[in-house]
Amino acid sequence: MIVDCAVYEGGHRRNGSMTLEEAHQASRESSGFVWIGLFEPSEEEFDSIQREYDLHPLAVEDAIKAHQRPKLEVYGDTVFVVLKTASYIDPEEIVRLGEILIFLGEGFVITVRHGQASNLHDVRERLEENSELLAHGPGAVLHAIVDKVVDDYGPAIGGLQEDIEQVEEDVFSDSRANVAERIYRLNREVLQFNRATGSLMEPIDRLAAGRYELIHPEVRTYFRDVNDHLVRVHDQLEGFRDLLTGVLQANLAQVGVRQNEDMRKISAWVAMFAVPTAIAGIYGMNFEHMPELGWSYGYPMVLLLIVVLCTGLYRYFKKVGWL
Amino acid sequence: MIVDCAVYEGGHRRNGSMTLEEAHQASRESSGFVWIGLFEPSEEEFDSIQREYDLHPLAVEDAIKAHQRPKLEVYGDTVFVVLKTASYIDPEEIVRLGEILIFLGEGFVITVRHGQASNLHDVRERLEENSELLAHGPGAVLHAIVDKVVDDYGPAIGGLQEDIEQVEEDVFSDSRANVAERIYRLNREVLQFNRATGSLMEPIDRLAAGRYELIHPEVRTYFRDVNDHLVRVHDQLEGFRDLLTGVLQANLAQVGVRQNEDMRKISAWVAMFAVPTAIAGIYGMNFEHMPELGWSYGYPMVLLLIVVLCTGLYRYFKKVGWL
Amino acid sequence: MIVDCAVYEGGHRRNGSMTLEEAHQASRESSGFVWIGLFEPSEEEFDSIQREYDLHPLAVEDAIKAHQRPKLEVYGDTVFVVLKTASYIDPEEIVRLGEILIFLGEGFVITVRHGQASNLHDVRERLEENSELLAHGPGAVLHAIVDKVVDDYGPAIGGLQEDIEQVEEDVFSDSRANVAERIYRLNREVLQFNRATGSLMEPIDRLAAGRYELIHPEVRTYFRDVNDHLVRVHDQLEGFRDLLTGVLQANLAQVGVRQNEDMRKISAWVAMFAVPTAIAGIYGMNFEHMPELGWSYGYPMVLLLIVVLCTGLYRYFKKVGWL
Amino acid sequence: MIVDCAVYEGGHRRNGSMTLEEAHQASRESSGFVWIGLFEPSEEEFDSIQREYDLHPLAVEDAIKAHQRPKLEVYGDTVFVVLKTASYIDPEEIVRLGEILIFLGEGFVITVRHGQASNLHDVRERLEENSELLAHGPGAVLHAIVDKVVDDYGPAIGGLQEDIEQVEEDVFSDSRANVAERIYRLNREVLQFNRATGSLMEPIDRLAAGRYELIHPEVRTYFRDVNDHLVRVHDQLEGFRDLLTGVLQANLAQVGVRQNEDMRKISAWVAMFAVPTAIAGIYGMNFEHMPELGWSYGYPMVLLLIVVLCTGLYRYFKKVGWL
Amino acid sequence: MIVDCAVYEGGHRRNGSMTLEEAHQASRESSGFVWIGLFEPSEEEFDSIQREYDLHPLAVEDAIKAHQRPKLEVYGDTVFVVLKTASYIDPEEIVRLGEILIFLGEGFVITVRHGQASNLHDVRERLEENSELLAHGPGAVLHAIVDKVVDDYGPAIGGLQEDIEQVEEDVFSDSRANVAERIYRLNREVLQFNRATGSLMEPIDRLAAGRYELIHPEVRTYFRDVNDHLVRVHDQLEGFRDLLTGVLQANLAQVGVRQNEDMRKISAWVAMFAVPTAIAGIYGMNFEHMPELGWSYGYPMVLLLIVVLCTGLYRYFKKVGWL
Repeated sequence: MIVDCAVYEGGHRRNGSMTLEEAHQASRESSGFVWIGLFEPSEEEFDSIQREYDLHPLAVEDAIKAHQRPKLEVYGDTVFVVLKTASYIDPEEIVRLGEILIFLGEGFVITVRHGQASNLHDVRERLEENSELLAHGPGAVLHAIVDKVVDDYGPAIGGLQEDIEQVEEDVFSDSRANVAERIYRLNREVLQFNRATGSLMEPIDRLAAGRYELIHPEVRTYFRDVNDHLVRVHDQLEGFRDLLTGVLQANLAQVGVRQNEDMRKISAWVAMFAVPTAIAGIYGMNFEHMPELGWSYGYPMVLLLIVVLCTGLYRYFKKVGWL
Repeated sequence: MIVDCAVYEGGHRRNGSMTLEEAHQASRESSGFVWIGLFEPSEEEFDSIQREYDLHPLAVEDAIKAHQRPKLEVYGDTVFVVLKTASYIDPEEIVRLGEILIFLGEGFVITVRHGQASNLHDVRERLEENSELLAHGPGAVLHAIVDKVVDDYGPAIGGLQEDIEQVEEDVFSDSRANVAERIYRLNREVLQFNRATGSLMEPIDRLAAGRYELIHPEVRTYFRDVNDHLVRVHDQLEGFRDLLTGVLQANLAQVGVRQNEDMRKISAWVAMFAVPTAIAGIYGMNFEHMPELGWSYGYPMVLLLIVVLCTGLYRYFKKVGWL
Repeated sequence: MIVDCAVYEGGHRRNGSMTLEEAHQASRESSGFVWIGLFEPSEEEFDSIQREYDLHPLAVEDAIKAHQRPKLEVYGDTVFVVLKTASYIDPEEIVRLGEILIFLGEGFVITVRHGQASNLHDVRERLEENSELLAHGPGAVLHAIVDKVVDDYGPAIGGLQEDIEQVEEDVFSDSRANVAERIYRLNREVLQFNRATGSLMEPIDRLAAGRYELIHPEVRTYFRDVNDHLVRVHDQLEGFRDLLTGVLQANLAQVGVRQNEDMRKISAWVAMFAVPTAIAGIYGMNFEHMPELGWSYGYPMVLLLIVVLCTGLYRYFKKVGWL
Repeated sequence: MIVDCAVYEGGHRRNGSMTLEEAHQASRESSGFVWIGLFEPSEEEFDSIQREYDLHPLAVEDAIKAHQRPKLEVYGDTVFVVLKTASYIDPEEIVRLGEILIFLGEGFVITVRHGQASNLHDVRERLEENSELLAHGPGAVLHAIVDKVVDDYGPAIGGLQEDIEQVEEDVFSDSRANVAERIYRLNREVLQFNRATGSLMEPIDRLAAGRYELIHPEVRTYFRDVNDHLVRVHDQLEGFRDLLTGVLQANLAQVGVRQNEDMRKISAWVAMFAVPTAIAGIYGMNFEHMPELGWSYGYPMVLLLIVVLCTGLYRYFKKVGWL
Repeated sequence: MIVDCAVYEGGHRRNGSMTLEEAHQASRESSGFVWIGLFEPSEEEFDSIQREYDLHPLAVEDAIKAHQRPKLEVYGDTVFVVLKTASYIDPEEIVRLGEILIFLGEGFVITVRHGQASNLHDVRERLEENSELLAHGPGAVLHAIVDKVVDDYGPAIGGLQEDIEQVEEDVFSDSRANVAERIYRLNREVLQFNRATGSLMEPIDRLAAGRYELIHPEVRTYFRDVNDHLVRVHDQLEGFRDLLTGVLQANLAQVGVRQNEDMRKISAWVAMFAVPTAIAGIYGMNFEHMPELGWSYGYPMVLLLIVVLCTGLYRYFKKVGWL
């Protein structure tokens, strides 16, 4: 689906939307560039674009099928960038990944969104308001998109952090919940998120290092800033992994301790009941000669003995922490 | 066993199969190349090929014995490539590895399959339909084979993923299965698979970097694509390892929790039965002076007491989660 | 908030504080440099500084928002350094991080403190007393600040070490405390601290290697010394991680052992009480023909038997370590 | 002890053994080389060799004392190589390491064996039969020895693999053996073996890269083959480590599960016996008014009740898997 | 404290000790060098040395305060080396670290010992006997000291190894000791030792690579030998870590198994005693119609039944390994 298609000259958008052909025509005649925005295009929709801008078939295949790793490839004069976007679905504690694929050439930017990827409409609008930046050409568009994608990692990171803190609290509270599954699932999301963002650092680094002529020197500094942001995201995700590993071990320990406490309490109660049973058993024996049986206060004395012993045991168990 | 032997000129197969000698003769006279396909050849079968194409004895030894790591070696003018193929045997949850060894020289490609390796017949047929690619010479054949091998990793990855998801579900369900062995075996398969594919990345990278003149420049881009695919496979396998490690720990915890619950329940029942035993014991004592024994309602009152106590305990145990 | 603003010439402070405009004026006319100290400045406060010293907007954004990783960036002629400071809040066992951001240019140093960062007033005073060093220009100021920040890691390291030693003692003492949570929290602090200091090493290394002309060669040696100090901090933090991992495992083991001992003791007591119960039960049977029941010494003999058996069991249990 | 000493010219052994002096004399006059084989030589035995071939005292010290890491050092014109040999002592599940040290110079090879090192006699015989290779000089001898040593790792690897598979089977069988110690010892052997072989890769790589003129170019390809073999050995040992780690965890889990099953069974039996005890206790009370006691069928009915309850419990316990 | 101070010319010591001033004077006039040996010098003691040999204040600060990491720094023409020495205090199983700091310049060596560092007196004596080596100047002294320090690691390694082997034996013996604390402490010592020696490798490597002109080329080979020794030390310490990790896990498993055995035994005894209690309870019931009670052999038959049942249970428990 073609979402938007416009020509930009000297940092300004030529009024109105246009068809692909008009845009191609316009860009060839002027010094500006076309920006075509697509959403999950079919092979047929992409066909004419591929031919007009002479895109490499391998990159086109990737752009249509998606499910790529973040990467930056150079095919002839065209730079092809794959980005993973992330958003946090809090109720399910899931990091939902989307994909944005960008073709960058002299005179054109083609962006392809797949799944629940970050919204590029906002990016376009904000850029159109900043004609100075937009005048730096396709590289400025690439930066704006990457910047948006990396900024959008922020809320996902925040959502994960909140849930990890909740889990931490659960583990060290007196609650008897077993959060093993929740920790496992959070860890899986963190791993997946880290894989999606980790491989983006190297391409951004290359962009910041100024290895592509398509990227205006002024824009390179901005990529350095994005990279810095990305490293911070990566650091935080690594930190989450360490925390989750630690919290899992702590949970195991806490669950074990709590279960053992239960067993100990039950056993201590059983032990306490064994005392009256044993004493009563003795006075339930049928010997003919058991002087205590004839005593007037034999029965209350035995009851007293039982009470005293059980109370003593109870206190002792309390003292050593078994009850 | 010689599976197929043909001469290709200008991207087209010269009609019919031929003997090795004819093929050798034909290739020397023309600008095309021979493609000889072998399956687990004996030393004798390979002897004449070795002499005709002047293959290095070390490479030939590897090709006959197999059981190599994926690698790319250069012996004089000949490039020798070892590939591991993988297929997933779902009922046994095993990744079955096969081996394809390829000799690549000016004017010839010799492919040797061992075990349940990927089918090369399909590769040959598809290439023969694409004469443009085939015209790029032996390098195009190498790419087609490597591409097929790496594509065939996909279903194996998928099979593993499915089984890992099943294990995940088992662990966090209420089922009492101990999946430790299954996790262990899946992990072993993942490790083995990862070793088989991991060492392939570096040779593919070298092919993509254009370090071998035998590989037509046009074909190099395609190797970059294969490498990208391979990195994704590797990423997924690494992810599997992380998941299996996590799921193993979770399984340990879940099994421990469930077993402890059983013990707690049994102990709680024992504790409940200790109450009537102790009370009955007391009224089973033979003291002469036990006024309760003479009461008309002594017996039903004691029964009631026992019922009340046991019910109370039962409710308490339910409340604190011991039953 | 502007904390201090002064001009330094030939290693000496020009008397009195001045406004930003005066300072800017003065520095432009002389060969000295301005040092402006700020604390959590607002965007408005920073606005004029940015314009006067031509600071890059990305760096300015970082300086106002803080929450950066330690880093060193070069924007045109200006060097921008981010430092993390650390102090240990002993009662809560927390490493509190602050942030100092420094702009360094020909003729000016601008320092921005955020949060509970190390005090820079001391640094300024000590530098003002050492005119020889101060004469080396902005680089000397940078060194003095970095040196102070890294020196201040010392007490935080010391605080952590003390608490880790306390935890060690707790774990291996007879105390029944479960220090799992404390270990977890200390580990989290160590991780966070390590992340805050770890990424500082590389920039300091670059400063020591003399890659920036702003830094006087004489000062470089001093950066090498700071780097050495930083590596030691990092080594110690790594060591803490290893210790905490070890102590966590040991704690798990100790808790498990102690809990098991409790269960064993309780069970042993239950076992001991089962003996009199069983014997008394036998002599409580109502058979008509039980010769022992008629014996005169039947009852004391049974009591004796019970005492002997229980004493024997008690001794045995003591001997094998079950009690 | 001098094991063998011979002069080789043009790939052929000059007839008969000779004394060291004769050999030295002969080698100086001809274009061939001497190969002296020693077994755990004393300092005195080595003294004359050192002087004649001008060996570096540090290398000589190593050669006499042994207990080195695998390495390749260059002392002036002499190359000094240390190799670790391995053989598997199956009954004790031990990898026995030996050591071979080799001095290589223009015109001489001196080999020193320590401990249960691989037999070099076979190497010498096989080389003497292959005069073509032998004609490549001392480098060919070095290759033959390294090849033999690395080939001999094979059976040791195989022995370890077999024992690991046995352990795997033990862990997942119903056997109640605790294989923790066996796993620990196997892991120790694997670690030791890996250390002994791991540091050999880098020197072999250097030999294959053709960095030493002493090594004939023709021989270098063969070192590449040896290196490949060595990498495979290393891969397998790494794989063993992963397997042993996994199997240790699985063993812990299995042992825990099995022990818990035992405890559960015993407790379930105790719980079943508590039922008749409690019921019998009730009818053992001495109340005057207990109507059931007078019933004719009271006793058989109680017996029936007990049988019914116990059978019910037994079935229930079987159903929920507690028995 | 000044321990020794002497001038060496052409490999020979000029007779007698001298004051610092005399030594300085002598060294300036001759082509030899001064070697000043200090032990924990105060700032005052070092003051004149610093001035005479023009030492960098940062290095001097390090030399007086100690507590450095092993390192090699170059300050102008002076090389400054920090070494950690190690000795094993067997009764406490502690690796005691000392520190030696060395200033090396054209014409002087200044050695500073801190704590229980290796004895340098022996080094001096041995060097004085080897005038050939000593003639290579300060570099030879540096080598002799480093060699001594690394050689002294040997006994510490040996001590650790012995204690680790003891722990291994303890864990797998039938002893019931919980060696968790001992393992933890040994691991801590190994970690500390490894940190102390690990960072020495890189400086030694640089010395061996001949990057410092102060070091005579003849001496460089000897540094290579020291480095080799150091790598071996490092390898062994890494091996210790792996062993201790393994032994800790094994200990946890063994302790768990043994504790569970205890619990199982006690529970099995309790289960056995539950049988007579239940049977006796039944015959202790007060039903009027219990034919067995009137039988002459009722009592002995019940006793026999109890004995038979208990014996049967005992045998069964033995058979399944519960007792």
